[in-house]
Amino acid sequence: MAIPDVVIDRLPEYARVLATLEAQGREVVSSQEIGDALRRPGRTSAAQVRKDLSYFGRFGKQGRGYNVRKLLEELRRILGLNRQWSMALVGTGRLGMAIIGYEGFEPQGFRIVHAFDSDNSMIGKKIAGLAIKSTDAIETVLAEQPVDIGIVAVPAETAQKVIDRLVACGVRAILNYAPITPRVPDGVEMKRIDPVLSLQGMTYHLKARAGP
Amino acid sequence: MAIPDVVIDRLPEYARVLATLEAQGREVVSSQEIGDALRRPGRTSAAQVRKDLSYFGRFGKQGRGYNVRKLLEELRRILGLNRQWSMALVGTGRLGMAIIGYEGFEPQGFRIVHAFDSDNSMIGKKIAGLAIKSTDAIETVLAEQPVDIGIVAVPAETAQKVIDRLVACGVRAILNYAPITPRVPDGVEMKRIDPVLSLQGMTYHLKARAGP
Repeated sequence: MAIPDVVIDRLPEYARVLATLEAQGREVVSSQEIGDALRRPGRTSAAQVRKDLSYFGRFGKQGRGYNVRKLLEELRRILGLNRQWSMALVGTGRLGMAIIGYEGFEPQGFRIVHAFDSDNSMIGKKIAGLAIKSTDAIETVLAEQPVDIGIVAVPAETAQKVIDRLVACGVRAILNYAPITPRVPDGVEMKRIDPVLSLQGMTYHLKARAGP
Repeated sequence: MAIPDVVIDRLPEYARVLATLEAQGREVVSSQEIGDALRRPGRTSAAQVRKDLSYFGRFGKQGRGYNVRKLLEELRRILGLNRQWSMALVGTGRLGMAIIGYEGFEPQGFRIVHAFDSDNSMIGKKIAGLAIKSTDAIETVLAEQPVDIGIVAVPAETAQKVIDRLVACGVRAILNYAPITPRVPDGVEMKRIDPVLSLQGMTYHLKARAGP
């Protein structure tokens, strides 16, 4: 059974809620509580949570709630969160630097092992223990030490080319920060981080409320 | 007719594709082309594009495609992109600095007018023409010069509190960079920028491909 991407995209949120509950020593949780913890107006309801989790088998007992630890373990297994994922960052400008400095990746098993930049003055510099390499070396470096995921933090103009090169090197997942909608071949995953698109999705509602 | 949020969230992408086509001098575009430009495996099809746009009336003629300029104008109007939106940033650490320095906001009508930080050594410093103010002053500053949108780039521990304060000041949309799922009252929009959740949505597919 093919699981819709919208469901897959909600699972990490469920895992985060469960991890918080586990840290608090909770043993059982209801779908209602999970839904409430994720509440965005009109979105994740208890029924939605139950339906999403039902794709993966029966975790809960009717009226008894879910075992927090078991469900979290299962979600981690399903999502592949119980292993390490290696990443290559391309682009070490202001944004790339913030990405290298971000402390949220490692505890979740995501590790930046290569950082590339096209600016000669950056190459060889060490940032958070990571020596910046020339983008010219992407192919040779990834041939020697491949990565699972590519993070693209270069300007819009060069992003598609960088993504094509990463994909040609066997990278099968791209986290794209450049403000373009790049093309990737089938079988390559791509997510984008694009604050402008996020803002524009909210102004619709702000405008609707303020009137024309 | 209530328009589903998933549809609203795709409209900015359509607008971006149309803006690119307009800049190239294109006058007419098919739903197929729009869908292709946004192609992520198995997602945005021509039928999807037509269905999404049909919520807003009839833009295209059967078999003739859409007028690029007219459709773009209409999408801008619908999304509220034909005006300026003011924003207040809370948190000017490495991430906040990258947000202040991001050049993609202003051309799209999004302007950071206040930046707050709780670190006394930061307060009064000017970054990109913006004087950093104390988070203690959020209420007084926003009472004097309100904003449409709050950007939250503080650590997870303090994010909910900052969001509550912004909401109490009348901010009706939050772009949250902190790795938590905060609660906001009904009527307040919230989007999050969370690279870890994005990565975790991809590892499901990577793992499924690699086997257990």
